[in-house]
Amino acid sequence: MTRYRLTVEYDGGPFVGWQRQDNGASVQGALEDAIEKLSATRVTVTGAGRTDAGVHAYGQVAHFDLEKHFEPGKVRDALNHFLRPAPIVVLEAVAADSEFHARFSATGRHYIYRILNRRSPPALDDGKVWHVSPRLDAEAMHHAAQALVGQHDFTTFRAAECQAQSPVKTLDRLDVSQRGEEIHIEASARSFLHHQIRSFTGTLKLVGEGKWQPRDVAKALATKDRSACGPVAPPDGLYLVRVDY
Amino acid sequence: MTRYRLTVEYDGGPFVGWQRQDNGASVQGALEDAIEKLSATRVTVTGAGRTDAGVHAYGQVAHFDLEKHFEPGKVRDALNHFLRPAPIVVLEAVAADSEFHARFSATGRHYIYRILNRRSPPALDDGKVWHVSPRLDAEAMHHAAQALVGQHDFTTFRAAECQAQSPVKTLDRLDVSQRGEEIHIEASARSFLHHQIRSFTGTLKLVGEGKWQPRDVAKALATKDRSACGPVAPPDGLYLVRVDY
Repeated sequence: MTRYRLTVEYDGGPFVGWQRQDNGASVQGALEDAIEKLSATRVTVTGAGRTDAGVHAYGQVAHFDLEKHFEPGKVRDALNHFLRPAPIVVLEAVAADSEFHARFSATGRHYIYRILNRRSPPALDDGKVWHVSPRLDAEAMHHAAQALVGQHDFTTFRAAECQAQSPVKTLDRLDVSQRGEEIHIEASARSFLHHQIRSFTGTLKLVGEGKWQPRDVAKALATKDRSACGPVAPPDGLYLVRVDY
Repeated sequence: MTRYRLTVEYDGGPFVGWQRQDNGASVQGALEDAIEKLSATRVTVTGAGRTDAGVHAYGQVAHFDLEKHFEPGKVRDALNHFLRPAPIVVLEAVAADSEFHARFSATGRHYIYRILNRRSPPALDDGKVWHVSPRLDAEAMHHAAQALVGQHDFTTFRAAECQAQSPVKTLDRLDVSQRGEEIHIEASARSFLHHQIRSFTGTLKLVGEGKWQPRDVAKALATKDRSACGPVAPPDGLYLVRVDY
């Protein structure tokens, strides 16, 4: 048996999310279909992050097992062939240790959230950014974000349907920066709660617009009350960038 | 009468090009339709660069005239409303001098060509980059490109159907640089011949692959013979970035 580790890029727009579901095409399902075409066996693919519908990935990591051994470069090229025309691409396939687990072995997850902050909507990046018209103050957003870094009970920024056992997580990094017409929010942690980054983003937008003071973010965190969170940002601007092991 | 100057961003993928044609939707035609919805008059929109089918723009410039005066910010927002869902967005609308001509007043045009240089095809930028698998040497490409800068007879790099009166043009800049997995070719001139940048790109790719030596580009230029040009690069990676006046 060989365990394969994949690094995968995808446009989340056409999918119900990473995870296989009854109500539409998933990234996981598309990969499992492609692996079946390659190997004539049905496998389960496990991903590092179960990205929501509309969320993208520059570098999702996944693993699966096959009885038969294939040269990893051939696996990459064959899966890319069978995945077409779905906007999912295998960037790398390697033979992994049998102990390797895409989800449980991960020691760090890195996301970026892209806000297009200008009057006019996107023509070239439609579905790939969150379009926000009012001018946002990226410095104030960055300042406010620092109150969220560290180990906290993140109940305020957690979706009601989140299945994590505990709302306590350690956020390693939450940096907000202006890049031309875009504002980038870069978040790193060992793991995140469901909707955590989109909840951060929607809340930091209120700071960027001047509707909230930076200290209001720390206050919202301290309430441990979901209703203190700003409106959750849409999935369009969120990307899983990289996973550490 | 008011002359309006627009700055326009578009995804060229779904269009037959900038110019109105009988065989499909054009960017010019979509703008003229939107202006008609705003003003109930049919006008002609003149663009700075007649981009080909599949070529994109971050900052195309265009002008048109209306008898009735509208507040320019309202023109921008109304056109963006009527253009939906076409991937064309007006970034700016201003009232221009009646002498202003988007095409003939232009003193500089700036393009970028994006090559995605990696084994796997693009998932997130499909149709927005030229995917080239073999590793390209960006430094050798940049070195070779410098032979094209300056005033030359560019017959070698000119489409057969080019309507320019003379093949002599002055190329101000042709810079090739590596940006992560992408190679960017940045070209600036007062004006370009038809397919000139895509002809440069296809030829420089041969240098990047090591099939041509950098000096072969200077030789090809000197032949003034179209058949000495490398295969023309596809439109997908080409963007009109900015126009100077």
